[in-house]
Amino acid sequence: MNSDEKLRKLRHSLAHLLAAAIKELYPTALPTIGPATATGFYYDFDFGGGAPSEKDLARIEKKMKEILPSWNTFDGKEVEAEEARELYKDNPYKLELINEIAAKGEPITLYTSGSFTDLCRGGHVENTRLINPEGFELSHIAGAYWRGNEKNKMLTRIYGLSFDTKEELDAFKKMQEEAIKRDHRKIGKEMNLFTFSELIGSGLPLFTPKGTAMRQAIVDKINALQSEYGYSNVWIPHITKKELYMTSGHWEKFGEELFKVQGRETEFVMKPMNCPHHTQIYASEQRSYKDLPIRYAEATTVYRDEQGGELLGLSRVRSITQDDAHLFCTADQIGGEVKNIMKVIAQFYTALDMYKPGGFRVRLSLRDPAQPEKYLGGDDVWKSAESVLTNIAENANLDYESIPGDAAFYGPKFDFLFKDALGREWQLATIQLDFNMPARFGLEYTDRDGSKKTPVMIHRAIAGSLERFLSVIIEHFAGAFPYWLAPVQVKVLPIGESHREYAKKVYSTIKRGGLRAELDQSDESLGKKIRNAKTEKIPYLLVIGDKEVEADKVAVESRDQGSLGQQSIQDFLKLNK
Amino acid sequence: MNSDEKLRKLRHSLAHLLAAAIKELYPTALPTIGPATATGFYYDFDFGGGAPSEKDLARIEKKMKEILPSWNTFDGKEVEAEEARELYKDNPYKLELINEIAAKGEPITLYTSGSFTDLCRGGHVENTRLINPEGFELSHIAGAYWRGNEKNKMLTRIYGLSFDTKEELDAFKKMQEEAIKRDHRKIGKEMNLFTFSELIGSGLPLFTPKGTAMRQAIVDKINALQSEYGYSNVWIPHITKKELYMTSGHWEKFGEELFKVQGRETEFVMKPMNCPHHTQIYASEQRSYKDLPIRYAEATTVYRDEQGGELLGLSRVRSITQDDAHLFCTADQIGGEVKNIMKVIAQFYTALDMYKPGGFRVRLSLRDPAQPEKYLGGDDVWKSAESVLTNIAENANLDYESIPGDAAFYGPKFDFLFKDALGREWQLATIQLDFNMPARFGLEYTDRDGSKKTPVMIHRAIAGSLERFLSVIIEHFAGAFPYWLAPVQVKVLPIGESHREYAKKVYSTIKRGGLRAELDQSDESLGKKIRNAKTEKIPYLLVIGDKEVEADKVAVESRDQGSLGQQSIQDFLKLNK
Repeated sequence: MNSDEKLRKLRHSLAHLLAAAIKELYPTALPTIGPATATGFYYDFDFGGGAPSEKDLARIEKKMKEILPSWNTFDGKEVEAEEARELYKDNPYKLELINEIAAKGEPITLYTSGSFTDLCRGGHVENTRLINPEGFELSHIAGAYWRGNEKNKMLTRIYGLSFDTKEELDAFKKMQEEAIKRDHRKIGKEMNLFTFSELIGSGLPLFTPKGTAMRQAIVDKINALQSEYGYSNVWIPHITKKELYMTSGHWEKFGEELFKVQGRETEFVMKPMNCPHHTQIYASEQRSYKDLPIRYAEATTVYRDEQGGELLGLSRVRSITQDDAHLFCTADQIGGEVKNIMKVIAQFYTALDMYKPGGFRVRLSLRDPAQPEKYLGGDDVWKSAESVLTNIAENANLDYESIPGDAAFYGPKFDFLFKDALGREWQLATIQLDFNMPARFGLEYTDRDGSKKTPVMIHRAIAGSLERFLSVIIEHFAGAFPYWLAPVQVKVLPIGESHREYAKKVYSTIKRGGLRAELDQSDESLGKKIRNAKTEKIPYLLVIGDKEVEADKVAVESRDQGSLGQQSIQDFLKLNK
Repeated sequence: MNSDEKLRKLRHSLAHLLAAAIKELYPTALPTIGPATATGFYYDFDFGGGAPSEKDLARIEKKMKEILPSWNTFDGKEVEAEEARELYKDNPYKLELINEIAAKGEPITLYTSGSFTDLCRGGHVENTRLINPEGFELSHIAGAYWRGNEKNKMLTRIYGLSFDTKEELDAFKKMQEEAIKRDHRKIGKEMNLFTFSELIGSGLPLFTPKGTAMRQAIVDKINALQSEYGYSNVWIPHITKKELYMTSGHWEKFGEELFKVQGRETEFVMKPMNCPHHTQIYASEQRSYKDLPIRYAEATTVYRDEQGGELLGLSRVRSITQDDAHLFCTADQIGGEVKNIMKVIAQFYTALDMYKPGGFRVRLSLRDPAQPEKYLGGDDVWKSAESVLTNIAENANLDYESIPGDAAFYGPKFDFLFKDALGREWQLATIQLDFNMPARFGLEYTDRDGSKKTPVMIHRAIAGSLERFLSVIIEHFAGAFPYWLAPVQVKVLPIGESHREYAKKVYSTIKRGGLRAELDQSDESLGKKIRNAKTEKIPYLLVIGDKEVEADKVAVESRDQGSLGQQSIQDFLKLNK
């Protein structure tokens, strides 16, 4: 039994204990269902009137802990439907479940521990001594429709957290508190990075000047890093006739999930990915082997019709801006290109201090060697590509795992998973080989010997989606972004009225120097000004008083290094370009 | 009678002359209609079989010139429908026209000159001596459906050019030849700037690396110029719920012309303009008079459902990228903001050498002073805004024209019209005040006295639509773009095999220096390499032979200034940053 399975049994056992406590405290409450969750358990009850509120949780938890020592094992027995129906004759929820189980011809089981019996499929700890009374607690109460259907009655759901030990419970609670503090929606609002409008719709963020500066800083950084490797930016429209996706094969697979765009004459669809458009730029000219690799990059927005209920801040949106690139190359060039993309990934995540041992891992998805016929692109190409990718991973000394059978039918891929400050793992960068799409679009190049060949296509993203990436790094840095990414890099703080004029000069000089700067023009005290700026997590504060005006300098306060003393504006600019 | 009216009469008279010539050369041809056009005239005929082709035009033109001296005046007479029907009993087209005129109760008139009579509303020269036989010629033949309806029969349309003098005719023909040479679709293809794909659809250009570099250069230039004036970039999605346009009022006016986007849960529309989205960023925070003006800029693509038949290269597209900005300010701030926008316009078009006396003019659209009740926004605001705008135009010493009654109901505006190299005029930049939209969205700021006020909104575009702007400047420069805008700024040309290595070093140094560069790696002769690069109209060629390798320099050939001698790479970079 693995530890996940053990935890699941522990948590489900606690759901029984919760129901037992509720039956003692609220004898008329009707228990319904009570499963384990990823962090604990819940149980849904129909309290009729008089449902408990969160202030009652302590009392309920106390009752659970009182009952626990009186329990020993969970004793199951199979019963006839009639017997179960008799037992639950006053509980329409359990009756509904019993009738369903009976209709399927499945066994109906009751589990008893102490004096409490529940209709249940099983899955409990072997002995209640395995339940650590310090390892669980009730966390909160919410409404939940019976069976998740909003046409049904709203029940009261009581949630609990559960771990093996108190230490684990405390660690989880601390992480959760920290996650709430770092919630990108909260920080995004406080730092004024993005907003939503009900008139525009859910999942469609609007980026304010500060959020837009961060988007641009990310795109600029990636462009700068890849400029070493011969990328060109291109531009494509956000819509297309569906014929493009009928050719690429996406129509058949994803047609229903695409946003349809109705024009007066023609039906279009919004692009949910960029690769088919980019093939059409490749196809606009005759290509020779001398032209390859061709590397098209573009940070452009795709639209996906996500369900409203799945939308969440910037993590899950309908307007997804990808830092996308598509490379067209010969089979021989795959290794060199993948290596260069990896260098860009390494440099980009190093600039975020996230590319470090233990901080990320790589998944290499390969074909299922037992079923080579499932894959497109020829045995040779696959063999050589897989060996090239494996060698790269080995030589780069990466924490990587090969997963045979995980590749798409059109090619193997690398996925990069980075850990954030709370230890949560996020798949961000990706490099995917594609032996299929170039052929579907009839892409060609003329080889050295004059013959026509089909290029290989490489899809790659460094940040992934800008929106999702921002949600991850806002929470990772809790708003204290690295200098190059900070929405405001420098704030100029004149101490008093008489320092304002010089402060304005400093401000416009550093703005002209290309830094993202603000000038504090408020009438607050210096202490208040500094506290405000620290809340905003601005990397540098330039404080200006008499001494600075006199010396034609600024006093530099670094967020990360403390006071750096006086510097001339030009020196500050030079050091922080 | 103004000169337009005179030309129209001349041209329509020539249509009669053309029909007379056709009746002599093709007695069975049925004349239908023959109007004046903006550059001459045409006449549509049903030739049954045996229609003339373009090689017959000379013979037809000769016949016109033979007939002309025998004509004198166009003598009109009103006839009964019966008489007209008898005359045209074999011509179903004229019969259809006669029946229509009769049904409307309008007079039926026949005009005779020499021995030729035509059913005609009139509008001819007073005497055929006013027709200069050297001032016209037949230009081409095309098919045209009777009455423009594709369900009708295809007729043969013969086109002619017509001007007062031979000189004017020749000048027009020369301009037309030049326009064909400069056609942005032709140059765009030759210089490889953009492409279309049938799989994606008409009116949806894809920009190649070179075209994308030009788009970016334009946006960067505008961003750099306006950075002096406190603009911030923002980012908005390309779709919205229709509620946004119901609030802005666009839904009622333009609802039918918008692209509807169907999601599984919600209907969206593609944005045909950006202002309503930008108001929602303004509205996302409390604003104080101290925060104003707020200036949001964004080069973003709007989508408009243009009819397929109206689409033309980049001039008329469905994906329109606007270099848009929206400013929110107090009424007092209008003058200062408009002045600063004008500075940006002046600097931008100066960088294109288009902002010069005689090269552009400005239209100032004002309210109709007789109907102040037609306009939104209050009499004071209009009066002061109009006087501010008029003063600005006066003081800037602009070639401007005030057009009372031309303003929209929501505010006055400036439009900038620039002349291209062929003397054609294009409306490009615009500055529009808006006293309406901020109120519709309930935008507010807290004034000095604590009261809530509605800001004024200014819409402005410098280039207008990037696509249309590109179509204009590609034709204006015939591909020989100013250095800052050229898709390839520098090409490195090694003379022989032994210079390639040094050339590569030069190439990567100037690429790293941020210039858009190419390296000629072909095996062509130097002469051929230079000719190729000149066809591509690249501003600088860096030629590298023995002497340059030895001196660690490059020989600079300027497109506009000829040979500039040897320079070190660093000097070249410094001079051309």
